[in-house]
Amino acid sequence: MQFHLNGFEPGDPEIADPARRYAPSGSSDSVPTEADVLIVGCGPAGLTLASQLSSFPDIKTIIVEQKGGPLRLGQADGIACRTMEMFEAFGFSERVMKEACWINETTFWKPDDKQREHIVRSGRVQDVEDGLSEFPHVVLNQARVHDFYLDVMRKSPSRLEPYYARRLLDLSIDETAPGDNAYPYQVTARLERVDAEHEGQHETIKARYVVGCDGARSVVRKSIGRALHGDSANHAWGVMDVLAVTDFPDVRFKSLIQSAKDGSIIIIPREGGYLFRIYVELDKLGAGERVSNRNITSDHLIAAARRILKPHTLDVKEVAWWSVYEIGQRLCDKFDDVPAEDSARLPRVFIAGDACHTHSPKAGQGMNVSMQDGFNLGWKLAAVLRGRAAPHVLHTYSAERQAVAKELIDFDREWAEVLGSSKGFDPAETQRYFVQHGRYTAGTATRYRDASILIGAPAHQHLAEGLTIGMRFHSAPVIRLSDAKPVHLGHVVKADGRFRIFAFAGAGDPAASGSGIGGLCEFLSNDAQSPIRRYTAAGENIDAVIEVLAVFQQGHRELDINAMPPLLLPPKGRYGLRDYEKMFCADPRNDIFALRGIDRARGCMVIVRPDQFVAHVLPLDGHAELAAFFDGFMMAS
Amino acid sequence: MQFHLNGFEPGDPEIADPARRYAPSGSSDSVPTEADVLIVGCGPAGLTLASQLSSFPDIKTIIVEQKGGPLRLGQADGIACRTMEMFEAFGFSERVMKEACWINETTFWKPDDKQREHIVRSGRVQDVEDGLSEFPHVVLNQARVHDFYLDVMRKSPSRLEPYYARRLLDLSIDETAPGDNAYPYQVTARLERVDAEHEGQHETIKARYVVGCDGARSVVRKSIGRALHGDSANHAWGVMDVLAVTDFPDVRFKSLIQSAKDGSIIIIPREGGYLFRIYVELDKLGAGERVSNRNITSDHLIAAARRILKPHTLDVKEVAWWSVYEIGQRLCDKFDDVPAEDSARLPRVFIAGDACHTHSPKAGQGMNVSMQDGFNLGWKLAAVLRGRAAPHVLHTYSAERQAVAKELIDFDREWAEVLGSSKGFDPAETQRYFVQHGRYTAGTATRYRDASILIGAPAHQHLAEGLTIGMRFHSAPVIRLSDAKPVHLGHVVKADGRFRIFAFAGAGDPAASGSGIGGLCEFLSNDAQSPIRRYTAAGENIDAVIEVLAVFQQGHRELDINAMPPLLLPPKGRYGLRDYEKMFCADPRNDIFALRGIDRARGCMVIVRPDQFVAHVLPLDGHAELAAFFDGFMMAS
Repeated sequence: MQFHLNGFEPGDPEIADPARRYAPSGSSDSVPTEADVLIVGCGPAGLTLASQLSSFPDIKTIIVEQKGGPLRLGQADGIACRTMEMFEAFGFSERVMKEACWINETTFWKPDDKQREHIVRSGRVQDVEDGLSEFPHVVLNQARVHDFYLDVMRKSPSRLEPYYARRLLDLSIDETAPGDNAYPYQVTARLERVDAEHEGQHETIKARYVVGCDGARSVVRKSIGRALHGDSANHAWGVMDVLAVTDFPDVRFKSLIQSAKDGSIIIIPREGGYLFRIYVELDKLGAGERVSNRNITSDHLIAAARRILKPHTLDVKEVAWWSVYEIGQRLCDKFDDVPAEDSARLPRVFIAGDACHTHSPKAGQGMNVSMQDGFNLGWKLAAVLRGRAAPHVLHTYSAERQAVAKELIDFDREWAEVLGSSKGFDPAETQRYFVQHGRYTAGTATRYRDASILIGAPAHQHLAEGLTIGMRFHSAPVIRLSDAKPVHLGHVVKADGRFRIFAFAGAGDPAASGSGIGGLCEFLSNDAQSPIRRYTAAGENIDAVIEVLAVFQQGHRELDINAMPPLLLPPKGRYGLRDYEKMFCADPRNDIFALRGIDRARGCMVIVRPDQFVAHVLPLDGHAELAAFFDGFMMAS
Repeated sequence: MQFHLNGFEPGDPEIADPARRYAPSGSSDSVPTEADVLIVGCGPAGLTLASQLSSFPDIKTIIVEQKGGPLRLGQADGIACRTMEMFEAFGFSERVMKEACWINETTFWKPDDKQREHIVRSGRVQDVEDGLSEFPHVVLNQARVHDFYLDVMRKSPSRLEPYYARRLLDLSIDETAPGDNAYPYQVTARLERVDAEHEGQHETIKARYVVGCDGARSVVRKSIGRALHGDSANHAWGVMDVLAVTDFPDVRFKSLIQSAKDGSIIIIPREGGYLFRIYVELDKLGAGERVSNRNITSDHLIAAARRILKPHTLDVKEVAWWSVYEIGQRLCDKFDDVPAEDSARLPRVFIAGDACHTHSPKAGQGMNVSMQDGFNLGWKLAAVLRGRAAPHVLHTYSAERQAVAKELIDFDREWAEVLGSSKGFDPAETQRYFVQHGRYTAGTATRYRDASILIGAPAHQHLAEGLTIGMRFHSAPVIRLSDAKPVHLGHVVKADGRFRIFAFAGAGDPAASGSGIGGLCEFLSNDAQSPIRRYTAAGENIDAVIEVLAVFQQGHRELDINAMPPLLLPPKGRYGLRDYEKMFCADPRNDIFALRGIDRARGCMVIVRPDQFVAHVLPLDGHAELAAFFDGFMMAS
C-alpha cells in the first residue's frame, strides 16, 4: 500500500476521504461507579489488556485516558515478530501485515576511511533470521495499533469503549472492605474530567483491580508507593517523521548511521512507502537537566541529520510529527502493590508498560514489551474474576514481567552503550551485536525462567527441544487432518483465555488401542482427576477451559478421522456439531517434529498458556503431572 | 475462524453481536437524475463494476437494486483462484483468505462394488495444482463478497452506495440526442420504487451508459432485444446450507458423491468450520416445466442426501438457507446493444453476469465469471469517460467476454454431462476430467484469443513463454530492490485503471549505458512517440496512466538504485517524493525468469491491462510497437 504521497494524513489509509478515516471511539456516558477492572491509560499496555478483557462479557472493565481522544500521531512504531504473533491471537495480524512497512534488512553506515566527513555503508544484515518467527518485523504508526485494538474492543461481546479526558487524581485501598463476592471493591479511584465541557468535575470508581498503564509519570505507580530506579541521567533524543527527498540509497531500510564528528542517526522507513523516521541522538543530559530547556526545534534535528548523511542530500518537505524527549533505562522493583514484607497478600493494583519500565528507543522495545505486559496480565485477571483460577495466580504477573523487564533493560543498556558511546560506536561491533541479539529485538527471547505454578520444571524438556518451557510457543506449519488445509499450528492459540494441550503423537498408529494419544484422551475424557472434567462447568463446551489438539506424524491421507479418540472430534454447542479443527498432521515439506525437536518415538504433550507461552512439556502418559499442574492454580467450577 | 456453532448468523463474524454485524448500506436519497453509468443490479457483476468505477470521483455512477437491502444469505459460494487475484487488486483478498473456507482437496465417492447401496471413496485430488496461482480456491457466502465490495465503494473517493428497492421498468435510447459532452445522455431508464414507503413511485435517470447486471431475467437484456439461447430444458437443483452432524469423513472436503440408485450430491464445506452446503441434483425438467410445481421442500432434499450418503449418517440440525431452482446453460449472442448489421455503432447499453450467460452450479463458475465481466468492463468505461481511451474500446467488452462465456458454457455442458448423465457419472472419468480441467475451474484458463486493439499479436510471445498474451498476468515472487521486501509481482496491479509495462531486464548490468531497460526508459521519458509523454496530462504523476516497473536478474544487494534510470525512481506528488516501488529483483529461491520462461539474454516487456490481463509481449527495444499499441486506442490528453 502506498499513501502519504501528498502529505501525512492520519487514520485508516484505505478510506479515501481523510476526514472519514476514524471510527468513532470513546464513550460519551459518565463512567460507571463500579468495575471489576479499572485500566488507567489507553496506551499499548492498556489497550492490549482491555482487548483481552473485552472478550469476556461477564467482566466489567472500564478504561480511562487523560487525552481527549484516540492517538492520531507519532510515538512508537516498531512491531517485533513476537508482537505480530500476539496480534494474530487478537485477530488483526493480517491488517498490520498489509498496512505496515516491513523491515527486511538493516544496514550500517560509518565514516569513509578515505574521506572521514562522508559516510559509507559498512554492512547489511537480514533483519530477522530465517525461521525465527512466521511473521516479519514491521513498523507502523502506534496510533494505528491503537485503532486495531479499539476495533477489537468495539466488536467484542463487551463492546468496550474508552472514557477519554479523565485524569486520575488518586487511588485509595480500603483494607477493611470485605473483598468478597458480596462487596468486592477494595480500590477507589478518583478521576477529574479534563475536557472543556466537564472541566474539573470529579468521578469516583470502586474497583476490584486497578491497572496503571499510565506511562512513565504514572499516578497509579506513585499511589502504591513505587518508583522507577536506574539511570541517574537521561538520554535526550530527537525524533521526527518526515516526507523528504534524499539520495541516501538505504532510506527504505532500517539504517544505523554513525558520522565521524556529527553524531549518529537511525533511519526507519515507514508505512505507505514515502514516510520515514529519523532518530537523532542528542547528548546525555546532566542530572536534573531537561531537554526542553535547550529550545531544540525540528530545524535543529534536520540540520543534524543533513550533516550526518553527507555526502547524501536530505530535502525535508514535511515534518509529520517530531519530538524531543529524554528517557532513561529505569525499572520498578515490583509491578504490583504487594509489599515485599507481606508477599502472600493478594495484589489489587498493578502497573504495566512505561509505568514500570522505560527503555531507549534504539532497540525498538518499549511498545512491544508493554503490550506483552498487558497480554500476560489480561488472561490471569480474567481467569480469577471468572472463578477459573485462584487469586494467587496474580502474583505471577509481577514475578514474570519484572524479571523480563530487568533482563531487557540490561540488554537495552548494553545496546545503548554500544551505539551511543561518546567515542562513536564501532560499526563492526554493532553489527555483530545486532546479529547476536536479533532474537531479543524480535521479542522471541523472552523467557520466564523460574518454575512456578504456571511454569513447569524442565524434567521432560528433551521431548520437545524446540518448544522451551517458559518461552512463547514457536509455531510451525502443519496440515489440518479434516480438510488438508495448510495452517500454522500456533495460530490456533487465540486470545480467548483458554489453556491448550498440544499432544504430539509418538511412533505408530494414533488410532491403535494403547497409543499415547488414545491414553491421554481417555484420561482427559473419563478420569476423575482429569483437569477437563474437574474445571469445565456443566453445560460448557468440552474445550471451553482447556482445548486439546493433536499432531500426528502421518500424512493426512493415511488417517481416518472416525477412528480417532472422540475428544478430538468433540460435539459442541446447542446442536452437538462436531469440531473438525482439533487434529493436524506434519507437513512433509516442513516437518514440525523435526523443526521443533519433538521425540518421534515417544511424542509428548505441550501445555500452552492463554498468552501463548509454553507452561510445561510432559510425556503423553504424564497424566498425574498434567493433573497436578492444573490443580496447582485452577478452581473447580 | 470458527463461527455459526450455535446457529447460522449472517454478516461479519468478527462482530460478536449479530445485531450489529452490518455496516449501513444503501442511500436513503432519491436517485440523481443523470449519471455517466447506471448499473442495474447489486450482484457480483454489478458490484465489481461499481467498485471499479467508485475509485474515479470524476465519474457519476449510480447503482440500483430491486431488493430492499444488501444480500444476507445463500446463493453462490465458490471463489476461484483467479477471483482471489482480482480481490487482491480490489484490496480485500486478505479478508477473504481469513474468513473463507479453503478447498484444498476434492474427493470422489461411488457405489461400493461389494455392496452397491453403500458409497466408498474412489479418489481424491489436490484441488488446485501447485503453482497455478498464489491464491487458494475458497468458498464463502456470496453475501460476504457483496459486503467486501460495498466496503470498497464506501471507502472510495466516490463514497458510492446502492439505491435499493428500485425495479427497472424500461430503458429507452434516444438516437437523436447529441451524445456529446454538452448533452451526453442518450439512455433513459425508468425505475419504480418497491419499498412500502415509496411503493409505486417512479424515477427517471438519464445516463450515458447503462449496464444490466440484473440476472437471468434481465430487464435490460430484454430492453435491447437480446435473448439467452441454449438448452431447451433446464436442470433442476436443490441446494441447502446446513448445520448437521454426520460421520461422513470428507464433510470438510469438497466431495462429489454418486450413489447406485439414488442420484448424486455435491458437498461443499463452508466458512466457519461447521456449516456445509449440499447440492442435490434433481431430474432434468421438461420444456416449460417449472420446478416450483413439484412442491419440493428442504425435507425432500435432506431425505435424498441421507439416501445417497449411506452407510453414513446425516442428522441435520438447522437449514440456514435452501432453494430449489432450475438452470440451463444459456448465452446471449452479444453483450451490448450494438446490432450485428451496424457493428461500428458505439455501444451504450451492456449486459453482464447472469443477464447474458447462465451456468450449471457444478463447476462453481457463475459468480466468478460474472465478476470478471464487471472487471473487464469497468476500466474500459472509466477510460472512455475520463477521455483516456477512444470509445471504440467499448466494443471489446462483448467481443472478449462473449467468447469466453461461450467457451465456458461448452466446458460447463461437457462437465454437466460427465457428472449428470442419467446412467450416473463414472467416478474415474470424472476424476480425470476434474484434474484436466482444474485450470478452467480455477478461472486461470480464460484467454482472449483474438488479436484486437487491446490484445497484441503473439510475434514475441517466446520472450515470455509463461506470460501468455490474452491471459491473466501470472504472478510470481520477487524481491523489491529498495527495501528487500518479498512481494508478489502481480500484486502491483491494483484495480486503479492504469496500464503497466513490466520490463524484464536481459543479461548484463541494467544500469550500464545501452542496456535494454535503459533504452526503454530513455524512450519512454524523452521520445515524442512515448505513450507516457503522449497520454499523461500536464500536472499528473508520471505513472498516472501507464506505470513502468522493472525486474532485474541480479540480487538486490548487487544493484545501486541511484544508478538506475530516473523513470524507475520517479518524483511524484506535490513534494516530488520518490516512488521506491518500481524496481524488483528475481528471488533466487523462486526465480521469476525461470518460472515464467522469460528470455534471460534479451529480456522483454510485458504490457498488462488494468484488468490484469497480458495485452502484449515485446522486445525491450520494441519502442515503435509499444507506441503503436497505445496509439491504437488511447487519446492524447
